[in-house]
Amino acid sequence: MAAGSELVSLLLLLSIANLCNGGITSRYTRKLEASVDMPAEAFPPPGGYNAPEQVHITQGDRDGRGVIISWVTPLSPKPNVVRYWAADCDEKHADECQARTTTYKYYNYTSGFIHHATIKNLKYGTKYFYELGSDNVTRRFFFTTPPMVGPDVPYTFGIIGDLGQTYDSNQTFEHYYSNSKGQAVLFVGDLSYADNHPFHDNRKWDTWGRFVEKSTAYQPWIWTAGNHEMDFAPEIGEKTPFKPFTRRYHVPYRSAQSTSPLWYSIKRASAYIIVLSSYSAYGTYTPQYEWLQKEFTKVNREETPWLIVMVHSPWYNSYEYHYMEGESMRVMFESWFVQNKVDLVLSGHVHAYERSERVSNVRYNITNRLSTPIRDSNAPIYLTVGDGGNIEGLANRYTEPQPSYSAYREASFGHAMLEIKNRTHAYYTWHRNQDAEPVAADSLWIYNRHWYPEDESSQ
Amino acid sequence: MAAGSELVSLLLLLSIANLCNGGITSRYTRKLEASVDMPAEAFPPPGGYNAPEQVHITQGDRDGRGVIISWVTPLSPKPNVVRYWAADCDEKHADECQARTTTYKYYNYTSGFIHHATIKNLKYGTKYFYELGSDNVTRRFFFTTPPMVGPDVPYTFGIIGDLGQTYDSNQTFEHYYSNSKGQAVLFVGDLSYADNHPFHDNRKWDTWGRFVEKSTAYQPWIWTAGNHEMDFAPEIGEKTPFKPFTRRYHVPYRSAQSTSPLWYSIKRASAYIIVLSSYSAYGTYTPQYEWLQKEFTKVNREETPWLIVMVHSPWYNSYEYHYMEGESMRVMFESWFVQNKVDLVLSGHVHAYERSERVSNVRYNITNRLSTPIRDSNAPIYLTVGDGGNIEGLANRYTEPQPSYSAYREASFGHAMLEIKNRTHAYYTWHRNQDAEPVAADSLWIYNRHWYPEDESSQ
Repeated sequence: MAAGSELVSLLLLLSIANLCNGGITSRYTRKLEASVDMPAEAFPPPGGYNAPEQVHITQGDRDGRGVIISWVTPLSPKPNVVRYWAADCDEKHADECQARTTTYKYYNYTSGFIHHATIKNLKYGTKYFYELGSDNVTRRFFFTTPPMVGPDVPYTFGIIGDLGQTYDSNQTFEHYYSNSKGQAVLFVGDLSYADNHPFHDNRKWDTWGRFVEKSTAYQPWIWTAGNHEMDFAPEIGEKTPFKPFTRRYHVPYRSAQSTSPLWYSIKRASAYIIVLSSYSAYGTYTPQYEWLQKEFTKVNREETPWLIVMVHSPWYNSYEYHYMEGESMRVMFESWFVQNKVDLVLSGHVHAYERSERVSNVRYNITNRLSTPIRDSNAPIYLTVGDGGNIEGLANRYTEPQPSYSAYREASFGHAMLEIKNRTHAYYTWHRNQDAEPVAADSLWIYNRHWYPEDESSQ
Repeated sequence: MAAGSELVSLLLLLSIANLCNGGITSRYTRKLEASVDMPAEAFPPPGGYNAPEQVHITQGDRDGRGVIISWVTPLSPKPNVVRYWAADCDEKHADECQARTTTYKYYNYTSGFIHHATIKNLKYGTKYFYELGSDNVTRRFFFTTPPMVGPDVPYTFGIIGDLGQTYDSNQTFEHYYSNSKGQAVLFVGDLSYADNHPFHDNRKWDTWGRFVEKSTAYQPWIWTAGNHEMDFAPEIGEKTPFKPFTRRYHVPYRSAQSTSPLWYSIKRASAYIIVLSSYSAYGTYTPQYEWLQKEFTKVNREETPWLIVMVHSPWYNSYEYHYMEGESMRVMFESWFVQNKVDLVLSGHVHAYERSERVSNVRYNITNRLSTPIRDSNAPIYLTVGDGGNIEGLANRYTEPQPSYSAYREASFGHAMLEIKNRTHAYYTWHRNQDAEPVAADSLWIYNRHWYPEDESSQ
């Protein structure tokens, strides 16, 4: 009983600390796995002649009735057809969808045959099987389309960033994979880290595709471009940024009236998700700028209450790593985010975890000195989930003291979950790799900015 | 004599005002020409079958021994050869240089045949004739190569921006043209303003090429891309930014190890000139960022004392127009400019004239409020010369009060001249259109940051 009251006191103290607006720097430190890549042998290609591999799916249209199915075949471009059928129908009535097939060269690497098939006009909320390959070598997968877009549709997203393919990456991935709640992944950029290897060894793109297949083949991962997707290496003649990434990962940018796969938007369940590119032009009048300006006018909170932005480089980061790197883009766009009451901004890039308060820094006019972030109920919460675990290791140096915009920060690997319940509430959790998956090291009931713009910090 | 002493008193007062660090907002206002384009008939193509037109030259290599000669032929791609010879040699010994020829389509417009010939290994400081066309229809021009690069080589640049092709544009252009001192033009972006016409009427690119030919065919214009060069119009299917500009205007970006014509550098006489793109990606790790970072390591002030940067959108602007648009790029790069003691930053974009003090704003760390510009002897002077005169008219609303970073501002059209004298001194003048060319409405002896880092403001 004494121990019990001590616990109550401790919790009280912690909650007082929270009420007093002190951000939390977690003292949690645990042994990490080695920041080295798992061996290629850990991810052998599937057996059989020309077997489809590296299967991944993403949303293929505006509203969730479309799916882009992508895969690689090593030896022959054919067949490049997807057979698919609703799980409650007879396989004999399967439809077929033709893929477009491409290859690319990167320095001394030649890719396999990369196939992308876009299936449209599926039924909402329906399980589908799909099959790739032919003859003896077929592989069968399935996915479930989201419910029809609507304001109170519950939906659960995983949030993963900076994953790579180390033993740490594997922990994060298995951790997420073990959580049965996740229906789709919001991936905030930096996939394979191929560019950390000599000549951007593009075989690492292949092993990464195999590594994550057991999730990406079954639920859509929504892709954001990170700096490790640029593969810009003029010293070896590779002068086209984003070549491997854009060849391998397709996104439905045209249905979002975007002119580039690096920025686009989708509606899914009760969420409107905008994906931006930290590494493309975002200055005034540029294509991304013009697109984003129009984009906000398309958001109807009566239809999609939850407005979420994904962008690789965080705008509110209090680690020493990449400190202030997001400033240039923040300066450009933050006022739009506040005006349009974005609920959440998801980022990666910094290899650690951080959650911000609802803050904005949009009063500055050069001469007025009003340049520090302040609490703002119209502002998003900024989440940095760059903690997938990758070959570059952990960001474990904080700026001190913890700035007031930082609500919680911890230098651990992990992933997050966002459980949208209805138009007003979503339950957000962050899961460090060392805990059992159900343990939430950080959690918050997030209130929708349009429908319930209350202060969450007094929880 | 009384009048004379009044004048002396007035000058004294003005100079005291200057010493007291008060910036000058000019009260000068005069009637402007109409902000409408001159009619196409003002710029007929030259006579004769397939006559070469829209002739323009720019530096074609790293050091000034190369020239890119560009022109358009309306009817046939051939001949696409430049004949050229040193003025002190016999024309019979002329050399020939083959051009590369391209065309492009833009919406309902098809370009003529656009030719670019790069002549290299010319002699320094030498006048050359060159001839385009064939048979009866030849046109002859000339240019003078710059002296060999060296620390005390005097050289005079004109500075023009946002020119367009209105009656105001014509005044600016004729004004500059009448100044015999100018040896090359540093053009800070926004050429033809074709995009202000229905469907970005690309015939305006042709008339602009004819309009400026009497200068551009005879001296190099160093090009910077402005927002009006983007011609990004997805609504009419034009989704490739900078298409007309990059087809028509070539620059020596490869010799600067750049991977894009939108950012590059040259050495000319005693100046090292870096051209940046406000409308390309400049975030950390992007190609422009990586290039610029390396670029500063290549500058040798013993060889080229004068370090000049051109970028369309100004970083220090106190007009209401485009106020703070340059912040995003300033935040990214300003510290490099200060560390590397850039002498001058030339911009356009704002349709007016402004000269800054030597200021920097690089102390800000998000939490410290140190976000206002301060005097900094390592910082560049920022010049906004977006006052070529164009169809959008003048920027005539100032932010008030004049911020301390602004030394002189005036809402008039005009151009500027930079007379580099030696490694320590350059004489800078700004010329409003309504005055006779020799009148300098603003002037300053500029001291080199490397060789003579004294304060100019006490002049």
